[in-house]
Amino acid sequence: MKKLVFCLVLAVGVLHASHVLAEETGDKLMQRAQSQFEAIPPKVTSIKGIKLTPERVKLGKWLYFDPRLSRSWLISCNTCHNLALGGVDLQETSIGHGWAKGPRNAPTVLNAVFNIAQFWDGRADDLHAQAKGPIQASVEMNNTPERVVKTLKSIPQYVKLFKKAFPGEAEPVSFDSAAEAIEAFEATLLTPGSSFDQFLKGDARALNEEEKKGLKLFMDKGCSTCHHGINVGGAGYRPFGVMKKPSSEILPREDKGRFAVTESASDEYVFKVPSLRNIDLTPPYFHSGQVWDLKEAVAIMGSAQLGIDLTDDDIAAIVAFLKTLTGEQPRVEYPILPPHTEETPLPVTEIIAVETKKNGTEGH
Amino acid sequence: MKKLVFCLVLAVGVLHASHVLAEETGDKLMQRAQSQFEAIPPKVTSIKGIKLTPERVKLGKWLYFDPRLSRSWLISCNTCHNLALGGVDLQETSIGHGWAKGPRNAPTVLNAVFNIAQFWDGRADDLHAQAKGPIQASVEMNNTPERVVKTLKSIPQYVKLFKKAFPGEAEPVSFDSAAEAIEAFEATLLTPGSSFDQFLKGDARALNEEEKKGLKLFMDKGCSTCHHGINVGGAGYRPFGVMKKPSSEILPREDKGRFAVTESASDEYVFKVPSLRNIDLTPPYFHSGQVWDLKEAVAIMGSAQLGIDLTDDDIAAIVAFLKTLTGEQPRVEYPILPPHTEETPLPVTEIIAVETKKNGTEGH
Repeated sequence: MKKLVFCLVLAVGVLHASHVLAEETGDKLMQRAQSQFEAIPPKVTSIKGIKLTPERVKLGKWLYFDPRLSRSWLISCNTCHNLALGGVDLQETSIGHGWAKGPRNAPTVLNAVFNIAQFWDGRADDLHAQAKGPIQASVEMNNTPERVVKTLKSIPQYVKLFKKAFPGEAEPVSFDSAAEAIEAFEATLLTPGSSFDQFLKGDARALNEEEKKGLKLFMDKGCSTCHHGINVGGAGYRPFGVMKKPSSEILPREDKGRFAVTESASDEYVFKVPSLRNIDLTPPYFHSGQVWDLKEAVAIMGSAQLGIDLTDDDIAAIVAFLKTLTGEQPRVEYPILPPHTEETPLPVTEIIAVETKKNGTEGH
Repeated sequence: MKKLVFCLVLAVGVLHASHVLAEETGDKLMQRAQSQFEAIPPKVTSIKGIKLTPERVKLGKWLYFDPRLSRSWLISCNTCHNLALGGVDLQETSIGHGWAKGPRNAPTVLNAVFNIAQFWDGRADDLHAQAKGPIQASVEMNNTPERVVKTLKSIPQYVKLFKKAFPGEAEPVSFDSAAEAIEAFEATLLTPGSSFDQFLKGDARALNEEEKKGLKLFMDKGCSTCHHGINVGGAGYRPFGVMKKPSSEILPREDKGRFAVTESASDEYVFKVPSLRNIDLTPPYFHSGQVWDLKEAVAIMGSAQLGIDLTDDDIAAIVAFLKTLTGEQPRVEYPILPPHTEETPLPVTEIIAVETKKNGTEGH
């Protein structure tokens, strides 16, 4: 039933779109875009009412880059979400402790604060809940909350900064507060200033004709039915393969997506609609990471989600538009991390026999 | 014969030292230190007559942080020589492609430009020659020069920067010039301003009494016979275990050090004297990385190199002095790397069966 409604919405969208296509011109295109999308702001000042203090952001940055949050001391948040590379690792699916290959492609951390939830299946409500996942996942950082807290408590400079970041708390150094600090830092990882955002803000010349054609197609063909809002996606859940199921390489049948979270049959192969912000920087595509070419990814979305075969020209225009979603990448000073002490648990690099959980309970 | 002369030099040093110990006071200690050591400068402007241009340093920084120099796109220079962690990876021996464990501990990149040569066995004359090693080592980045050049040539922003960094060259993008650019960036990774350097520059109060006692012992007991100069080491080669061979855990018998380079019997178990700059930040110690505790490392050096059992008090003082060798860590902006293109060879993470070469022809 849910799927049917969804298809109807799409169909209506497509019909409506072809009507508008002919008559639409400059200002109207901008107005339509403004009604569906929103520019990335230069700054977020609070999340869920929590103030993002400089101390919390600083602590979060240390933690984000600190490989000692992993059992091996080799993997940090930045390993899979590399700020030098669009906030991803450019891997099909991420490689973690013991060179284990995780089940899903790493989503970008950039602008992730604007997503409705985190992970491909939305099993974490926010970045704070998300941050706790990879630290513990056997195929990622392979650590435990206890070991992380012991590590952080053994380093005086960390203890000092936790106290400043979480003033008045009885136990300022905790796994929870570490995750909250990481969330605070991640909330600063925004990419404002893209050509598309300049267009949204009223500069009609920020997009060229091909890019405008792509934007129009993006809305007309139905892409923006799912990929809308501030993150051009990231705002809801949809079945992957609603019109035509992609090959089992692209949609591995054992990963049922959100079904693992809700255990509702209607959530089989349902995933969070990924944000398309900075999409040009973050191949390979889809949760399986099997498609490196953005043109190919667009074609697959056409057939799998919209049931249409996009022409090469249309695909080229849509890709041209998608490239305008690349914003200014956040620049950060690489942190100098505080040294460990005799009390710090030492790194363990041994590969503990682990089974890669492909059912979506672990990994991105 | 060589060893005998070396022992005699040490013995004379020790005798002379105990005589001086009693009568030495403030100014004299400073003068003695100034005759054996040199402060780290804030900047190096040229290496071997090569000018370090801003373009070359910028390119070198990109390359240093770019994991796409490795076959897997997961390992960069910064993985083993992490600028957040004193320029090392804090591993016993480094972990590379396929989670392979390399044969030796990663020496710090900080101030490495002042070392007589690179790698534990000095098989690279300079940082330029060194940079080429790990990129190709099967247990490190596991790449080939051809693949690196193909990668760099496929990225327009890299090509542009290579042309700026190596103007007038017929082939600006080459494996050689990549290594030279990395060298240029690494030459900026200095740690001036340590307490010890402030003392060397005339501030008698930069060291406290315990640290001064440690400095005196360091010179008196014979440590500075090998660990002298700007890097408090890094200026020559010495056999490890000249007085007493350490256990085979600390001195693995299959790694004969410089012997693999010179094939001269007198170079068996000879290694480059490591720099002690920032030594407090860079455990575990020795080429085998088997000792995490600096006190223990000092005790081992006493027995192995000097044939003496240092007292706990003396060890504590020497360690207090060694901690004054920690300088200001270099702060860099984390680079935003240029995106790859359709022409870029994609990452390969498969583990190709490799045998870890423990004879010193590969690894740090």
